[in-house]
Amino acid sequence: MPGDFGLLSPVTADPRRQSVTGDGAVVAAVLAVETAWVQVLESTGLAPAGSAATIREAANGEGFQAAGLAAAAQGGGNPVIPIVAKLRSLVSGRSPEAAAAVHASLTSQDVLDTALMLLASNAVAMLRGDVAGASAAMARLARAHAGTLQPARTLTQHSLPSTFGLKAAQWFHGLAAAATRLDAITFPVQFGGAAGTLAAGTVLAAKAGTDPFTLADSLAGNLGLAAAPAPWHTNRTQVTALGDALAALTDAAGKVANDVLLLSRPEFGELAEPRAAGRGVSSAMPQKQNPVLSILVRSAALAAPQQAAQLHLAAALSVDERPDGAWHTEWNALRTLLELAGGAAAALHELAAGLQVFPDAMRRNLAISGPLLLSEAAGAAVVPLLESQGGTANPRKGGVGNAPGGGKAAFQAIVDRALQAQAGTQGTEFARLLRAAVPETALADAELDRLLDPAGYLGENSRIVERIFAAYPQWVPEGGGHE
Amino acid sequence: MPGDFGLLSPVTADPRRQSVTGDGAVVAAVLAVETAWVQVLESTGLAPAGSAATIREAANGEGFQAAGLAAAAQGGGNPVIPIVAKLRSLVSGRSPEAAAAVHASLTSQDVLDTALMLLASNAVAMLRGDVAGASAAMARLARAHAGTLQPARTLTQHSLPSTFGLKAAQWFHGLAAAATRLDAITFPVQFGGAAGTLAAGTVLAAKAGTDPFTLADSLAGNLGLAAAPAPWHTNRTQVTALGDALAALTDAAGKVANDVLLLSRPEFGELAEPRAAGRGVSSAMPQKQNPVLSILVRSAALAAPQQAAQLHLAAALSVDERPDGAWHTEWNALRTLLELAGGAAAALHELAAGLQVFPDAMRRNLAISGPLLLSEAAGAAVVPLLESQGGTANPRKGGVGNAPGGGKAAFQAIVDRALQAQAGTQGTEFARLLRAAVPETALADAELDRLLDPAGYLGENSRIVERIFAAYPQWVPEGGGHE
Amino acid sequence: MPGDFGLLSPVTADPRRQSVTGDGAVVAAVLAVETAWVQVLESTGLAPAGSAATIREAANGEGFQAAGLAAAAQGGGNPVIPIVAKLRSLVSGRSPEAAAAVHASLTSQDVLDTALMLLASNAVAMLRGDVAGASAAMARLARAHAGTLQPARTLTQHSLPSTFGLKAAQWFHGLAAAATRLDAITFPVQFGGAAGTLAAGTVLAAKAGTDPFTLADSLAGNLGLAAAPAPWHTNRTQVTALGDALAALTDAAGKVANDVLLLSRPEFGELAEPRAAGRGVSSAMPQKQNPVLSILVRSAALAAPQQAAQLHLAAALSVDERPDGAWHTEWNALRTLLELAGGAAAALHELAAGLQVFPDAMRRNLAISGPLLLSEAAGAAVVPLLESQGGTANPRKGGVGNAPGGGKAAFQAIVDRALQAQAGTQGTEFARLLRAAVPETALADAELDRLLDPAGYLGENSRIVERIFAAYPQWVPEGGGHE
Amino acid sequence: MPGDFGLLSPVTADPRRQSVTGDGAVVAAVLAVETAWVQVLESTGLAPAGSAATIREAANGEGFQAAGLAAAAQGGGNPVIPIVAKLRSLVSGRSPEAAAAVHASLTSQDVLDTALMLLASNAVAMLRGDVAGASAAMARLARAHAGTLQPARTLTQHSLPSTFGLKAAQWFHGLAAAATRLDAITFPVQFGGAAGTLAAGTVLAAKAGTDPFTLADSLAGNLGLAAAPAPWHTNRTQVTALGDALAALTDAAGKVANDVLLLSRPEFGELAEPRAAGRGVSSAMPQKQNPVLSILVRSAALAAPQQAAQLHLAAALSVDERPDGAWHTEWNALRTLLELAGGAAAALHELAAGLQVFPDAMRRNLAISGPLLLSEAAGAAVVPLLESQGGTANPRKGGVGNAPGGGKAAFQAIVDRALQAQAGTQGTEFARLLRAAVPETALADAELDRLLDPAGYLGENSRIVERIFAAYPQWVPEGGGHE
Repeated sequence: MPGDFGLLSPVTADPRRQSVTGDGAVVAAVLAVETAWVQVLESTGLAPAGSAATIREAANGEGFQAAGLAAAAQGGGNPVIPIVAKLRSLVSGRSPEAAAAVHASLTSQDVLDTALMLLASNAVAMLRGDVAGASAAMARLARAHAGTLQPARTLTQHSLPSTFGLKAAQWFHGLAAAATRLDAITFPVQFGGAAGTLAAGTVLAAKAGTDPFTLADSLAGNLGLAAAPAPWHTNRTQVTALGDALAALTDAAGKVANDVLLLSRPEFGELAEPRAAGRGVSSAMPQKQNPVLSILVRSAALAAPQQAAQLHLAAALSVDERPDGAWHTEWNALRTLLELAGGAAAALHELAAGLQVFPDAMRRNLAISGPLLLSEAAGAAVVPLLESQGGTANPRKGGVGNAPGGGKAAFQAIVDRALQAQAGTQGTEFARLLRAAVPETALADAELDRLLDPAGYLGENSRIVERIFAAYPQWVPEGGGHE
Repeated sequence: MPGDFGLLSPVTADPRRQSVTGDGAVVAAVLAVETAWVQVLESTGLAPAGSAATIREAANGEGFQAAGLAAAAQGGGNPVIPIVAKLRSLVSGRSPEAAAAVHASLTSQDVLDTALMLLASNAVAMLRGDVAGASAAMARLARAHAGTLQPARTLTQHSLPSTFGLKAAQWFHGLAAAATRLDAITFPVQFGGAAGTLAAGTVLAAKAGTDPFTLADSLAGNLGLAAAPAPWHTNRTQVTALGDALAALTDAAGKVANDVLLLSRPEFGELAEPRAAGRGVSSAMPQKQNPVLSILVRSAALAAPQQAAQLHLAAALSVDERPDGAWHTEWNALRTLLELAGGAAAALHELAAGLQVFPDAMRRNLAISGPLLLSEAAGAAVVPLLESQGGTANPRKGGVGNAPGGGKAAFQAIVDRALQAQAGTQGTEFARLLRAAVPETALADAELDRLLDPAGYLGENSRIVERIFAAYPQWVPEGGGHE
Repeated sequence: MPGDFGLLSPVTADPRRQSVTGDGAVVAAVLAVETAWVQVLESTGLAPAGSAATIREAANGEGFQAAGLAAAAQGGGNPVIPIVAKLRSLVSGRSPEAAAAVHASLTSQDVLDTALMLLASNAVAMLRGDVAGASAAMARLARAHAGTLQPARTLTQHSLPSTFGLKAAQWFHGLAAAATRLDAITFPVQFGGAAGTLAAGTVLAAKAGTDPFTLADSLAGNLGLAAAPAPWHTNRTQVTALGDALAALTDAAGKVANDVLLLSRPEFGELAEPRAAGRGVSSAMPQKQNPVLSILVRSAALAAPQQAAQLHLAAALSVDERPDGAWHTEWNALRTLLELAGGAAAALHELAAGLQVFPDAMRRNLAISGPLLLSEAAGAAVVPLLESQGGTANPRKGGVGNAPGGGKAAFQAIVDRALQAQAGTQGTEFARLLRAAVPETALADAELDRLLDPAGYLGENSRIVERIFAAYPQWVPEGGGHE
Repeated sequence: MPGDFGLLSPVTADPRRQSVTGDGAVVAAVLAVETAWVQVLESTGLAPAGSAATIREAANGEGFQAAGLAAAAQGGGNPVIPIVAKLRSLVSGRSPEAAAAVHASLTSQDVLDTALMLLASNAVAMLRGDVAGASAAMARLARAHAGTLQPARTLTQHSLPSTFGLKAAQWFHGLAAAATRLDAITFPVQFGGAAGTLAAGTVLAAKAGTDPFTLADSLAGNLGLAAAPAPWHTNRTQVTALGDALAALTDAAGKVANDVLLLSRPEFGELAEPRAAGRGVSSAMPQKQNPVLSILVRSAALAAPQQAAQLHLAAALSVDERPDGAWHTEWNALRTLLELAGGAAAALHELAAGLQVFPDAMRRNLAISGPLLLSEAAGAAVVPLLESQGGTANPRKGGVGNAPGGGKAAFQAIVDRALQAQAGTQGTEFARLLRAAVPETALADAELDRLLDPAGYLGENSRIVERIFAAYPQWVPEGGGHE
């Protein structure tokens, strides 16, 4: 009972996505490349008419079981060898000439690199749908919650008032930036022959009065891949660029998951994952509802960086005209990245589309810090007033910001006293101390209230959202996210 | 067509080993843990007689297809939940009482941690056989080639004469040290209940007048695992220790593979991999014979460190009483390490057991440097003689070793002049220059010849081998490696 | 203005610890090894009396500036070469004979490996003090808060009631396990000569009628290092074992930091870091008090795994008798691990020793889930009672645990209904629904209250703590943690 | 004696490059950002005339020692805090108004992110010079050795004849592709204020009738950085893109180093590093000349992937409006990547510019395989001839390519027999067997000789070179690499 179906990496376990990235898909991609190549030869007159059809028929038949081919791949350390052997054997029974055209002038790496680019291209196309869905949902959240107050948090602590709309827009920002990076990736065909010199291809092409570059361009065209200026057997920049972009995508997804995991904790209660039958249940505790989508996304985000590093390592260890083991570590790392990114995108899509938002809880948490959250704003207004009254030195801040006159120090002293009040009353105490420190003639009650109103200190919240959307228009849904 | 059978990671593609580590094996391990637990309950009177047998029967039947369970595991982010659901459902039709005992008082993490330890224990037992075979073969190589001269190489260049026997002994040294480290690993049972407090287990155990620690010890005993002093849901030291030891094993195997890959290059010709039907063939070049075993080993060695880092990362990101995604990245990383180490050990075993050694080529390569390889030894003898003749300063060495009197400088000047001779004649030139520099009265011809004989400057070659064997007696084959 | 003092890695920036691991300490360690070696030669009669003293004097003088030596190390790719050159040059002015003894028969790797083991041994001894302090503080927290109720949290959600004492004991558990692993590490001397054959050492030792192993054992003894059975130039198991153990230590520290970072959030308020002048201030927000110690610890925990992987990679890429670049990546990775672990241990010590605990907040957070937190316990008691009344199927759990009779389903339905109540009232609703579902004759009010009391469902909380302490007695402070 | 000067990472130890990336450079970059910001305020009328000059003067004075600032940075976990405190303190003595403008409305992350982008921009500009030099040198090698025959090697074994010119062109290809990727990176300013809402900046800008985006654009302009559409405190795509591109650069450099390390081994003798006084010497062996430049490059290439992964990990762990430890791991990883890439580029430049090429040795190594290297070409011509004679089945290739008629099998049998000849004679034997198998009437002697001439089977060697150059014209030196 061999086989890995994602049981230990649930974020990758969707059979629909595995059909695009699993070993079966690898076999299919290798066969697609071999078939497309014979099609090119046939079109150029280098293989008899009907060869490609014969091969396609053989390739579509039984006999290409991934498990057996994987075991056989150990012999050459390479999955192409047994697949080609099987294909030739099947075809030779039908047409010896077509069999002779199979894999003609190619080397294993030509086929495997091209096949993995094809597979990657398909997998990226699939995940792009989920990315579009997730970013659209985030744009809608940003619009819908433009006025939903929420404490901004830095280094775990409340810092200033903000909105959940801005947070959602920043999720969009991260995801759109990563997706744009991924969109810039091309998927080139590989074609270099046994030693990257195109030697056999030159001989072959000459028979039809053409050259191997032309044949390679046709192959790329047939497969929907990009042409390549030269063989890239030992130049893995495009492979690492793809892997890096996939990791950037899971990074962005991870950020969202981390926020949701935090904000859906009972002590926060600001967000909740969408519910679905059978999801999030615990094997022991009937009342538990686990934020499973976010956990899946986070698990992918934590695993992707190591795989991206594996690709760079493979590139860095390249040697000769084809390396001795480093290249071999690239294949599975790339596939795993595609699976992790695909799984993360799907879960993120579902998460963002169904996210439950609880503005009341956000408001309640904002009240924990209350007026203290406005201390930056209040300070800007109050320090000059305290200044004129003569502030005193403040040892706590180690001299930071001890502007002359001591207004800043006096203000900091007020903050510090407020922080010594009982939890839950610090904000009120801060307001009380401020009121006591500054005469009403200098700062009217209404003005002080305004200074301490979180809704009045949101900075450029809404313009930042607009600028983000303007920077990534292709990811903003029709209607700009407005419901 | 989902499923990964190792097609893109050929070192892991052996179906025999996958049957110990694949998703099917995970399912089997989870079922084994659940069954053993009911056995414990039954023995303690907490489940009716026959419960364990009923469960074992259900577990052995159809219905536990890994692919379907993997897809279902997405719902809870955890493979145990659907397996237990299925098991309960199957058992409830046979015995409601037995069904009630399934998973009683356990949490998913208890079962999954224990199951993975069980799986790991089995996988390590299997690879241990290959490690023993490989280390025995290396010990034999060390004995057989105790006198086979070979240049020692440091930083790619020839440094001193040595023997292939010592190299093989150092391979043994590395492998035996790593294997000894792996042998020190224990595989503990996990048992903490939903929150690591054993709350439900306490209630359950009390019904039989016992406590949950006693039950957990019985569970460990039934499964052949180690007892644990306390739940370790968030203390992953033993998991990382296992992962690290597996990486240490692939490190050691990687060293051997790197040497074989180098020394079996046509320019070296000192070693060759064992031949086997269908192995090492190229898809394009009829004459190629690729060193596939070493490539497989090296690919595993290059991939394992990232997986070991993943385990540490999971441990470092632990939080609460069970973490939110970090733990989830541990499962597959641990399994992958077991697969990589298992595949590497098997290939290493075959490689070491059938390695072809070509002493003539080693001797021929030694001759490339020839007498120059003895310059350290010659210098020790000749510098004092040159000293008395008054050497001159040598700018090249930047003052290093300019012992007073300049003998060292004069000697270095001889070496440098020899190095300027044509490739292939440098050694002879070195001998000639030395002869010219030192009067025969101070150093007789025979003595100079002795100084420049590589077989005469092997240091403690043979005693080092003995000391290595003495340090790791458990890995030395019967007969001490002597044929 | 070259030099890195930890400005971008604040966890490593303590000058006291840098004096043990910085480049200056590396230079000092190299000089200590070279000096100790001449001491060995002198004791054996292989260097003139007074040689070691002369060398020690030269080594203690000016002239060994790390910055200049680092720049010079580029020439040989190795820090030992310029240090030895400088040392020889300084000594030769005082005693030509002593100069000749410097580095005699050694190779750079002998000295650098030995020096790094010496440095590591010192750094580990220093951090061990902090580990002991931190674990003692945790043991005291475990004792002091044995009865401080706190919700256990799994996958971010409340699972069962527990105590902060148990959490602190599990912190101790993780730290003690990692520290025990680190205590098992030995720091061996390296001694193999230019090619790992001890060739020059053999010649040298013979002059005094001894052998190089004896000299190496003396060297190890002089430096307080462990003897080695054989050269380990290419067998890096002990280096990776050290690196892995250091990463395991930062893993354990990271777990604590993650918990503190979470529980000291305003929404939790359960813990607070110790305050200190100038710590945790923000450059912008006067009211902010950032949990800097935990952030430092966490930053170390997140960085260590990659460095440990780097060591494995270096080991896996070993080749020949000394490798061509892989070994060179080991040095800094090992040093960085020592710095990260040292910094994390120091911050953890201070954090644990001064941690502020707020039992009221823990109790308040426990009340968020309230009786629902006891649903596992309540279920165990109530399901049989519901059973007899005939439960109904529950589609939500997908068949999981639908024990016949439906009691489980009926209970789950109660839980689900309670979860639909408004946040903050779910616990009360759960209690109300339970009361309504089960007749008082079957379950008296007092019994139901008891079932829903968190203090009554702590399982083996206190015995687990005792068992953890018993498993790691060396890390429990005198008095067992009792104040 | 704190401080790290690269003693344990010699590739980074050049003081000239450290002056751009060391802690001193970080301090300078932070001061540059703070000064530029006051310059913006002054230009907008938000700070009094002369403020920027006052601050610049203070920043240029004594008092910003990196070591002390690093130690002080532990307090806030952040290097900006002590630098700003010191700057304010120095400025306040000169101008209280200027002091009040320092850091006004900024948060630490604004300054640190911007400062690191500034530092990165400088470091990349510096390394770009070395990349240009190295790629130009490679282009020249490609031209100069367009006809220098060399065996192509795949999976360590000889595969086909090729040229050293193509190898050099492929080095160029890899380097140019990576450098092009790096050239696409932008270095954006960071500007978001305490919580990413620009709250204080809005208030501040309003005083001058402008908005914070305008101020931020001016800041970017002053510093030569790119403008940013929005704050990117938690969206780290540009940081990872930079890190990934740097790793791609060291990957490409690593490939070259690996080739040089291999081909300069005594058994190959095809290449040698440029010599320089004091470089490559051994501490023990007078005759050794180590390929130190390549070792330095390789050590950087092996270390960079882990650092790039660290950046992704930091991005993936982002949470809130500024994360709690993950961000802190980014700083040093990014700096280390700049140092590794800078050191690798410099060493690569020197290596490529002075590389010694030995065409005779390449030709000699080509002769090891001799005619066998042409077996692909010979097979294409000979198989049809054998076909007509009726070949027999070949069990070895497991059915691969058993085209009907058995010509392929017959040919493989010839290859296999040749491989069984003594080493060194296999090529001749292959030619002999071929001659015997095919009648001269079908294949004339001259034609067979032509088939077995390596210079006649170079495929598209020269056109591939041209296409590579055409794809990356900006990296081709003037004159197209022709001397």
